[in-house]
Amino acid sequence: MKDVCLILGAGSGIGGHVGKRFAREGYHIVLARRSDQAGLDELVTEIEQKGGSATGFLINAVEDDAIESLIARVEDEYGPIKICVFNLGAQFGNLGLGQTSLERFELGWRLTSLALFRVAKCLLPKMVERAGGALLVTSATAAMRGNKGQLAHAAAIGGRRLLCQSLNAEFASQGIHVAHIVVDGAVDSPDTLGRLIGKERLAEYKNSLGEGEYRLLEPEHIAETYYHLSQQHPSAWTFEIDLRTHHDLPWWNSP
Amino acid sequence: MKDVCLILGAGSGIGGHVGKRFAREGYHIVLARRSDQAGLDELVTEIEQKGGSATGFLINAVEDDAIESLIARVEDEYGPIKICVFNLGAQFGNLGLGQTSLERFELGWRLTSLALFRVAKCLLPKMVERAGGALLVTSATAAMRGNKGQLAHAAAIGGRRLLCQSLNAEFASQGIHVAHIVVDGAVDSPDTLGRLIGKERLAEYKNSLGEGEYRLLEPEHIAETYYHLSQQHPSAWTFEIDLRTHHDLPWWNSP
Amino acid sequence: MKDVCLILGAGSGIGGHVGKRFAREGYHIVLARRSDQAGLDELVTEIEQKGGSATGFLINAVEDDAIESLIARVEDEYGPIKICVFNLGAQFGNLGLGQTSLERFELGWRLTSLALFRVAKCLLPKMVERAGGALLVTSATAAMRGNKGQLAHAAAIGGRRLLCQSLNAEFASQGIHVAHIVVDGAVDSPDTLGRLIGKERLAEYKNSLGEGEYRLLEPEHIAETYYHLSQQHPSAWTFEIDLRTHHDLPWWNSP
Amino acid sequence: MKDVCLILGAGSGIGGHVGKRFAREGYHIVLARRSDQAGLDELVTEIEQKGGSATGFLINAVEDDAIESLIARVEDEYGPIKICVFNLGAQFGNLGLGQTSLERFELGWRLTSLALFRVAKCLLPKMVERAGGALLVTSATAAMRGNKGQLAHAAAIGGRRLLCQSLNAEFASQGIHVAHIVVDGAVDSPDTLGRLIGKERLAEYKNSLGEGEYRLLEPEHIAETYYHLSQQHPSAWTFEIDLRTHHDLPWWNSP
Repeated sequence: MKDVCLILGAGSGIGGHVGKRFAREGYHIVLARRSDQAGLDELVTEIEQKGGSATGFLINAVEDDAIESLIARVEDEYGPIKICVFNLGAQFGNLGLGQTSLERFELGWRLTSLALFRVAKCLLPKMVERAGGALLVTSATAAMRGNKGQLAHAAAIGGRRLLCQSLNAEFASQGIHVAHIVVDGAVDSPDTLGRLIGKERLAEYKNSLGEGEYRLLEPEHIAETYYHLSQQHPSAWTFEIDLRTHHDLPWWNSP
Repeated sequence: MKDVCLILGAGSGIGGHVGKRFAREGYHIVLARRSDQAGLDELVTEIEQKGGSATGFLINAVEDDAIESLIARVEDEYGPIKICVFNLGAQFGNLGLGQTSLERFELGWRLTSLALFRVAKCLLPKMVERAGGALLVTSATAAMRGNKGQLAHAAAIGGRRLLCQSLNAEFASQGIHVAHIVVDGAVDSPDTLGRLIGKERLAEYKNSLGEGEYRLLEPEHIAETYYHLSQQHPSAWTFEIDLRTHHDLPWWNSP
Repeated sequence: MKDVCLILGAGSGIGGHVGKRFAREGYHIVLARRSDQAGLDELVTEIEQKGGSATGFLINAVEDDAIESLIARVEDEYGPIKICVFNLGAQFGNLGLGQTSLERFELGWRLTSLALFRVAKCLLPKMVERAGGALLVTSATAAMRGNKGQLAHAAAIGGRRLLCQSLNAEFASQGIHVAHIVVDGAVDSPDTLGRLIGKERLAEYKNSLGEGEYRLLEPEHIAETYYHLSQQHPSAWTFEIDLRTHHDLPWWNSP
Repeated sequence: MKDVCLILGAGSGIGGHVGKRFAREGYHIVLARRSDQAGLDELVTEIEQKGGSATGFLINAVEDDAIESLIARVEDEYGPIKICVFNLGAQFGNLGLGQTSLERFELGWRLTSLALFRVAKCLLPKMVERAGGALLVTSATAAMRGNKGQLAHAAAIGGRRLLCQSLNAEFASQGIHVAHIVVDGAVDSPDTLGRLIGKERLAEYKNSLGEGEYRLLEPEHIAETYYHLSQQHPSAWTFEIDLRTHHDLPWWNSP
């Protein structure tokens, strides 16, 4: 039986490409996302056509029991989850205090921070029993500092970074590898950036770049680092790593 | 009419002492806490006996509208809130993943992070209209990194630190001084430490210390720094400051 | 006999104003700077005219024994140094790798990092004997992260920040208060900014600002925070604090 | 002609193992270390016996021109240096202020910080001309914060971290990948740990550990991450990554 890799937030960007990368290595991939059955099916088909195996689920992660029952079902039907890629989050764009309702502030927290805590609550005890497993958490610049217009996002994802630290402090010595991956820039993904600025503008922008000039993080290459982290030996584990294009300044630099 | 200083979380520790310190400078102090009417009354009396003025309210900050209606009422009855000291938080003690329920995780967030966001939502627009005001946030070591046993606490307070950064980035240039005060150690307070380890053991511990040997942060001295921050000139404002005893190693050092 | 406050790097900006602030509180101020005897004399006179006392020295801090013999002489002639304000540093402006010679890289380190270490070597043992003293270190944004064009400056001052942490870890419990003050922006000072952009342009710029709009850190107000830190009670000491104008974004924020 | 990988500080730990790892991928390895010709020869032989190619040099990196002439010679005789692994540093053990002479403080800086700057000065312009190259810098916990007893080490290596940030900010967009690798714990290496505590005690300690219990970073596994970083695509480069055993708490956690 194949090892299972569960991907929460499996769209056309990081989630999908990480799925494809792990499928090539023989994992059975379980892809979960909130909407777009057609896109989900396409991803499953793409993995299968390259000789891999995958299953897709549509779930709304903020609903009561949605995460819990998905994990239970996956473990039951497909086997032990060896790797969980947590790729959920709520980036609402640039909103000031006046535009950020209590509801939005709460939704950001439910999707970003509470959802990871719920995954940990039901998955980590199973991994501890099996003395192994990895939880790879896709994070972002806003986890490192709160900019203007990021009230809900920064509070949720900044808190989640410290939640990951607390999980790591409790579980690393029990064989669970928690990694917090700071994606410090815009990712070239139709589902997120494409939706934000429009697919045509995104395509135009990419065409305008020179040969060897990368100004968007490419999820296919990000996936290589996820795979590397998942295979690190327990004598040399990474908790935190940053990723950005060679043209982006890190968050800590001023232009 | 006196300037108003509102203290959310006004117990016998930092909150109460900050209240007494600002009262000495002529502010009308509004003290809010969740329980202990007798303790609250005592604090008001103590301030009045030294020539200051104060009012006390018991509120449960996690209840809908509790914060919002308190702020409305204070502004209405006592005048514009010039300084708000946010001293709420939920330190549950050392609890592993198995002991941390979803309810507790949510409560930590409601008390620590959402409550500050609610204060900001209703108070900062008023301060912006008046082109001035200060929001002093009592924070703790767990806002800087997540230790083992701090899942709920670190996620909530770490997120709140970045929320403060986002508030500062939006409001400092509009005249609102947001300060994040990292109290990096145990505070000598009957209501928190006293309750945790027992008042007798606390007294014994303090008696065992040498002359000039401080191993607990004294809220009376912490209050001096709160007052200093509140009086900084806008050409030299502090966003973040740490406080600890001379005998405590900072959180970043190993013993 | 008065307590002595030694200021290394006592020009017309932070150093000079901190000197004036401490003089008002009764300290005898020893002002040391590299050049400009006339400016130094003026500062001494200004302090004396307001009823304080001060002495000035011209020293080149990178010369062998310059720091060591100044400290010995001050202790001998004026009494125990209670407070040392370390205000030296080498900000060379924006220089790429090609413009940064090995000599410049070394000079930056000698002025910024080694000079503080030399102060510590000869002054801290004396303070330990007296079981008290404070070392207030003026630092800058570049101590927090290395920008482009800051190779020599960031390496020197970033290293000095960790040197301060190591000094604090060794000496705080012995009664020595080390504080690292991150001045996160441009200071309104004729000797530094005035020299950099010209005094006339500086004056024009300041005149162009609105009422209550501060875009330069004013050393007179910075000095208030230095004084506050020097008076903190050992049960609530600050190691690190940042200072910036209400109009500047902190170094961690993107515009 | 093979791509060249230059390793400065090529002992039996990280440096040697990174050399072996890159040799397997077809790089010609140039190994430089300060002493132990026999150990150096052994490393070269080991690489050659596995089908790789390597050359060894003994150099004293703090001597004038030692680094510069090595780089010139390697480029001349073996071809363009594609990857430089900077593995030098000076960890003197636990020394207080009284035990840290000015000479030691300076030596730490020369070996750790200035040596990297010298490498950058002569190698990065060549890499820029070739529009590609990587500089992988082995760093340590002390680059993140200064503990007691680390005055010289923390000042030097903490400064170097910011130097790396400044180099990255200037050179990443020109195709040079600078990575700062924080090795957050003790490495299982005969040349460093073995020398510090004795080879026998080291062997005993390792024998006392349980199956699957790793308490020392194994350089062979660290080398995998170095190789991964060197192969990252420019759309997803890492600047900073940490590495530790599953049993070690990160530097930011308290036990």
